[in-house]
Amino acid sequence: MKKPKILLTLLIISLLLPLSIVAHQPTTTSSFANSPTDLEQASAKLAGSILVNGQSMKYLQTLTDRFGARLTSTKAYQRSAEWAAEEFRAMGLKNVRLEKFTMDGWERAVSARARMISPIEHPIILHSMGWTPSTPPNGVKGDVVLLKDFSVDKIKAQADNFKGKILLIDPATIFAEGRLNALMKASDAYMALKEIGAQAVLIPDQYENNIVKARKASLGTKVTALPIAALGSEDNQLIRRSLEKGTVTIEFHYENRTPGEVQVDNVIAEIPGREKPNEWILIGAHLDSWDFGTGAQDNGSGSATVLEVARAISSLGQAPRRTIRFALWGGEEQGLLGSKAYIEAHKSDMDKCIAILNTDNGAGHPNGWKVQGRNDVYEAMKPISNMLKNLNGDTLSYEVSFNTDHAYFILEGVPTLDLLVDMTHYDDVHHKSSDTIDKVNAHSLATATVIVAITGYNLAEQPQSLAPRLGHDAIEEILKKANLLDFLKKSGDWK
Amino acid sequence: MKKPKILLTLLIISLLLPLSIVAHQPTTTSSFANSPTDLEQASAKLAGSILVNGQSMKYLQTLTDRFGARLTSTKAYQRSAEWAAEEFRAMGLKNVRLEKFTMDGWERAVSARARMISPIEHPIILHSMGWTPSTPPNGVKGDVVLLKDFSVDKIKAQADNFKGKILLIDPATIFAEGRLNALMKASDAYMALKEIGAQAVLIPDQYENNIVKARKASLGTKVTALPIAALGSEDNQLIRRSLEKGTVTIEFHYENRTPGEVQVDNVIAEIPGREKPNEWILIGAHLDSWDFGTGAQDNGSGSATVLEVARAISSLGQAPRRTIRFALWGGEEQGLLGSKAYIEAHKSDMDKCIAILNTDNGAGHPNGWKVQGRNDVYEAMKPISNMLKNLNGDTLSYEVSFNTDHAYFILEGVPTLDLLVDMTHYDDVHHKSSDTIDKVNAHSLATATVIVAITGYNLAEQPQSLAPRLGHDAIEEILKKANLLDFLKKSGDWK
Repeated sequence: MKKPKILLTLLIISLLLPLSIVAHQPTTTSSFANSPTDLEQASAKLAGSILVNGQSMKYLQTLTDRFGARLTSTKAYQRSAEWAAEEFRAMGLKNVRLEKFTMDGWERAVSARARMISPIEHPIILHSMGWTPSTPPNGVKGDVVLLKDFSVDKIKAQADNFKGKILLIDPATIFAEGRLNALMKASDAYMALKEIGAQAVLIPDQYENNIVKARKASLGTKVTALPIAALGSEDNQLIRRSLEKGTVTIEFHYENRTPGEVQVDNVIAEIPGREKPNEWILIGAHLDSWDFGTGAQDNGSGSATVLEVARAISSLGQAPRRTIRFALWGGEEQGLLGSKAYIEAHKSDMDKCIAILNTDNGAGHPNGWKVQGRNDVYEAMKPISNMLKNLNGDTLSYEVSFNTDHAYFILEGVPTLDLLVDMTHYDDVHHKSSDTIDKVNAHSLATATVIVAITGYNLAEQPQSLAPRLGHDAIEEILKKANLLDFLKKSGDWK
Repeated sequence: MKKPKILLTLLIISLLLPLSIVAHQPTTTSSFANSPTDLEQASAKLAGSILVNGQSMKYLQTLTDRFGARLTSTKAYQRSAEWAAEEFRAMGLKNVRLEKFTMDGWERAVSARARMISPIEHPIILHSMGWTPSTPPNGVKGDVVLLKDFSVDKIKAQADNFKGKILLIDPATIFAEGRLNALMKASDAYMALKEIGAQAVLIPDQYENNIVKARKASLGTKVTALPIAALGSEDNQLIRRSLEKGTVTIEFHYENRTPGEVQVDNVIAEIPGREKPNEWILIGAHLDSWDFGTGAQDNGSGSATVLEVARAISSLGQAPRRTIRFALWGGEEQGLLGSKAYIEAHKSDMDKCIAILNTDNGAGHPNGWKVQGRNDVYEAMKPISNMLKNLNGDTLSYEVSFNTDHAYFILEGVPTLDLLVDMTHYDDVHHKSSDTIDKVNAHSLATATVIVAITGYNLAEQPQSLAPRLGHDAIEEILKKANLLDFLKKSGDWK
């Protein structure tokens, strides 16, 4: 869910939570007192196995070039999920299973053709936004009018002005209070526009060369009332300049598939623990991608990491103390649907969850972990982090983010670790047709895999759990400090 | 003709031509002895008129947003030419006329839809190259095979392998001896491929995010035998990786208009000289553009400069000593067709041509002039350059370039000046959908206009001509030192 990443990622860098809000203080001493040398040796073995002839790039190549884009609810996604399950089985993992959840399906069938008819004839670059309907069979053709407010009342007041028109949103006013706040109102706005006879909505993008990102036009996964298209930046500016002088008429056509409710699979697999098989840590990433590129960075890289971590730990030949559960989620891009559904289905199991490790921050060099605002997790992670110094992977950040599959685990009070990655060039290819394997650095991907593998193995092996599960008030304190509380109450995710 | 710009721009920075090859030494002293103060005052007036409430950006906005892309042979080009003639007339210029030349017409009718069918279903970004035909009505569909050589014999030897296929050229081999050398063979190669039953040719581009440049697939302006499409970089890499593993099948469809021979207009206008009306300097730029963007940088900026220079000089209210002729050329992008045709039609007038000033190097800050390898021009330009110091416009460069409309004037031995511009960001938008007015800096454009106006006015006003017309041997010496001789002999442009 990288759209909300921009908006929801509320950084609390260097936030030190006061001890008073941590429900229980962890015992941080002697976590690894029993056998530090064994753990170091196992960690070194993992690093060697992954860095020398490891499989990360091979998994990534299969995901991107053999299955291509893995848009949730498409056949390509389903095939990649079945392949991943087979890979887990081939490694000797146990309890390998596809766990279903339901959502509305959506797929791009025929890409867009678009042009300005007046005041000049000119090719226009636009693309259907996700989870919006096709244009009518003969396309959409009409005059462009600016839309400055998503308020249903204000839309209805302008019914005569908007009828039969193509509405171009004005980001300066619509997104004035943040994109996320606007998107919460968007579905109702589209419905109101549909009811008064508007034809379609355009949402301008911001990248030079009319590059358009794949994303959704509203929150939720119901297909919108109207066709909504993302419009290239230069074409938007041309339309805006032309509107200042008179009428602008455009036309466009594209087709999408909207089959209604479909079932989607999360892929789950386990290395059962040798002493405490009922306690588990989870190592996960989302398998799905958007469909302009082939989802190499977002999140083929994370999925390849999870598969390779499973292979490497499994090949150690000795089960860790606790169970390690691996998860490849569906529906992340449409709202963390897979991980959220998993938590709903496994509520009774959450007390036994020691920690969640998630990786979804791109193919840059990995630097360590985000501990999501928890001082107890920060302190308890130090011994593991120390082993990652030579990988430049020993950074621990208090940053709280609610933008990928660890998010709903935060609301469960479970210790969550999100891989901290250099994101300098993340947006260059993010959700664009350039998100392809040629951009992924094999060394950065292998290094990420080593960091996840060593961290996961050590967390599963240590005698004591990393940190306690937090209670309601301590969680709320974290959400409040991260400026997340109001939004999560509004969205109904927190009470 | 910006494709050859990359290839043909043979830089001879700091080349000092030995005096021996200059046919006649100019008298550089006392060129401005008669009235330096008057010339300075007139130059200052021009600068003020252009920089304070000048019209450069208004002309540019009309060209780009009112006419849009001005692809030679289209209605949009023709309308812009007629408008420019009207503007010249409105300024009070004389002998305003459209001068026709003929070429094969070409226009993009319906943009491309393309996808990979196998090994994965995936949207592909490609666009028809200029002066190539439409695909068949149902499109092109077939397996992709690499083409490593444009030699007709080698193509025929592979007839069985190429029949029914879509040929993807391998730049590593095809362009091994330079793109220009390959393009000289390209038309014959396409014909041979057509004859053995190949369906189409793909030429990969090199820009992140599958950005494709508008350009031609061969030299000349005959429509090629086969559809030729430019293919996005990431999609090319996906196809190349997939080809290593097996068969790759793609399909695409687009329509172009190919009406055959059409007439195209150059726009010519004059400020007649008060003392030597038969002697003239020419201030020109090409009016045409490619059609992905609206040709703001290339070469709306140059065209707006020429119009504004005409307005500013005309508004001085006093004709210069010699005639200043203004030219807006068509067909530059297809091979300097307009300026070449003009020279052919005006051969007998070339002895009276004092100098050519051309501007077509983009919308960056202008730094001065390229004197095209001539020491006599370099020396004679110094007094004018000195007036441009406070504009950072006093650089004189010996660089020889054969890539825009001054080129065929070099072969006439006429002193040619090509505006020297900071091209650091030229390629960011060059021939792309991002070549739009929002990228043009108003101050850089106005400064370019001042430099051209002051230079042009002074050249027309000075008592003596800038430098002599060179003879055959002196011209050939320049071409030789610029590594242009072999190419121009091969192309038939020089004997």
